[in-house]
Amino acid sequence: MIIVPEAACPALLSLEDAFEPVEQVFAAMARGDAENFPVVREALGGAEEALYGFKGGYDRAGETLGLKAGGYWPHNLERRNITNHQSTVYLFDPATGRPTAMIGGNYLTAARTAASSAVSIKHLARADSKVLGMIGAGHQAAFQLRAALRQRAFERVIGWNLHPEMLARLADVAKEAGLPFEEVDLDRLGQEADVIVSITSSFAPILKAAQVKPGTHIACMGTDTKGKQEVEAALLARATVFTDEVAQSVTIGEAQHAIAEGLITEAAINPIGAVINGTHPGRSSAEEITLFDGTGVGLQDLAVAAKVVELAKTAGKAIEVEV
Amino acid sequence: MIIVPEAACPALLSLEDAFEPVEQVFAAMARGDAENFPVVREALGGAEEALYGFKGGYDRAGETLGLKAGGYWPHNLERRNITNHQSTVYLFDPATGRPTAMIGGNYLTAARTAASSAVSIKHLARADSKVLGMIGAGHQAAFQLRAALRQRAFERVIGWNLHPEMLARLADVAKEAGLPFEEVDLDRLGQEADVIVSITSSFAPILKAAQVKPGTHIACMGTDTKGKQEVEAALLARATVFTDEVAQSVTIGEAQHAIAEGLITEAAINPIGAVINGTHPGRSSAEEITLFDGTGVGLQDLAVAAKVVELAKTAGKAIEVEV
Repeated sequence: MIIVPEAACPALLSLEDAFEPVEQVFAAMARGDAENFPVVREALGGAEEALYGFKGGYDRAGETLGLKAGGYWPHNLERRNITNHQSTVYLFDPATGRPTAMIGGNYLTAARTAASSAVSIKHLARADSKVLGMIGAGHQAAFQLRAALRQRAFERVIGWNLHPEMLARLADVAKEAGLPFEEVDLDRLGQEADVIVSITSSFAPILKAAQVKPGTHIACMGTDTKGKQEVEAALLARATVFTDEVAQSVTIGEAQHAIAEGLITEAAINPIGAVINGTHPGRSSAEEITLFDGTGVGLQDLAVAAKVVELAKTAGKAIEVEV
Repeated sequence: MIIVPEAACPALLSLEDAFEPVEQVFAAMARGDAENFPVVREALGGAEEALYGFKGGYDRAGETLGLKAGGYWPHNLERRNITNHQSTVYLFDPATGRPTAMIGGNYLTAARTAASSAVSIKHLARADSKVLGMIGAGHQAAFQLRAALRQRAFERVIGWNLHPEMLARLADVAKEAGLPFEEVDLDRLGQEADVIVSITSSFAPILKAAQVKPGTHIACMGTDTKGKQEVEAALLARATVFTDEVAQSVTIGEAQHAIAEGLITEAAINPIGAVINGTHPGRSSAEEITLFDGTGVGLQDLAVAAKVVELAKTAGKAIEVEV
């Protein structure tokens, strides 16, 4: 069995390395060649108030079977200076059931989430997109921004965050890429951005439908739980909606609110894999608003974990242990 | 992180070593100090026709958090000479979410299942039990028999199996313990046995209610899926019924049939942990029939896995790896 420790992952897997595995597994899901298993998510209670669970799946096309186990320990950083998100990916040989790999899952989770919105931009944003708008400026926002910048010839980045002082994080990433960054209000963000990536932990709509200009592509990446919400539900009715997994989109994703309010139906939500496979045409005009509801599925974790194992083997960095 | 490979487990953990962890976790479950998470169980289809899934849980009392992942690959033995059951246990630090151990789960599963019926015999069988009756003679039956023999001063073992030639396996275990073994029909088995352990993969009742004599303790260990059945439903109405987890007993355990036929109610099923904790009196007379419905829960796996990690550390056999 192979072990790839958490600390080894960032040097092995670039954000770009995560794009193709995530794209391929979205495509396999849409073809019915890959399924996510029911998600287990439990509140452990007690002094640590942790959330813990498992996201598993099986990709017959990619021959990937396994799960991500772990969760969120909200007091880790303040109490012991380790990251609050703690996860590990375990892979199995689908032909025999034997465990094949254990991979630190913290960086992989950031990379696969960044890859998800990047893949949506690749397939849904206008080719001539010039201005990238960011909503949210937490740890994950830097990953989303870096990955998004690879997909179009963006000329500038604009951003909004509830706590504006955190936007320095995004300005730094833009600067690395040689692009100007500007803090803007939400009206300007909606009017100027050709592509918007939203990555917050908001429980109330931040961006309003009327603020968004025609032709925009929006990736809503923060909503992964019942009750969370980043954009006004009316925006989903105005947009053509795509997602990683429809079942999650309507229950724990951004679409939960538009569905609950009767503004859209489940049938109106398209798996992005169908666009990748060419069975859905994707964007139909330069005026259409496209919205990607990125909910995050276990198969993304398995896909990037399998990729990092392959890269570790090639680099001679795979630790072999007997199990 | 600690690794205990599959091959190291049998030498580290005796069947007796599994008794106390399983007893303690049943007790914690009954006190509300430990919970099993929803079980994920998926048919993977394809040429291997494998079943795969996760059984997780959290024992606050034992500070044990994690899961068993794996399943059943029905063609492993014939096609590649490895065991059909393939599982691995993963433990996490409940205080931080970090992975702490990975342990081969195949032997542990056999040991925890054997410990389960042994614990039921300890707490529910008559003290003067002399004759042990076995129904089933597969691989797991030898483990159940060995563990059961530790709990009472049995004087002989009798057994029945659909394929009688397999009973040699049980005769060998009895012989090791210095006890005579006899093949019997089900009428004699019910009339003579003071304790009966049933461990088959039957989908139809084998033992009838009328075949069982007063005062018997019966551990039904084979029914872990909807549709499986080892004893006539009427036997559960005649007996006082105990189980590891009531929620599993009524859905996938032996009690599913008596419940479906309206012969007993869920309220009539007692967690064995209540007997261990002293909040249920257990057996009330020498004539009472007690029946333990052993369905198998993830917390048992975690409990014996934590024990084997402790034993491996003591024995200097724990393999440490960085994650």
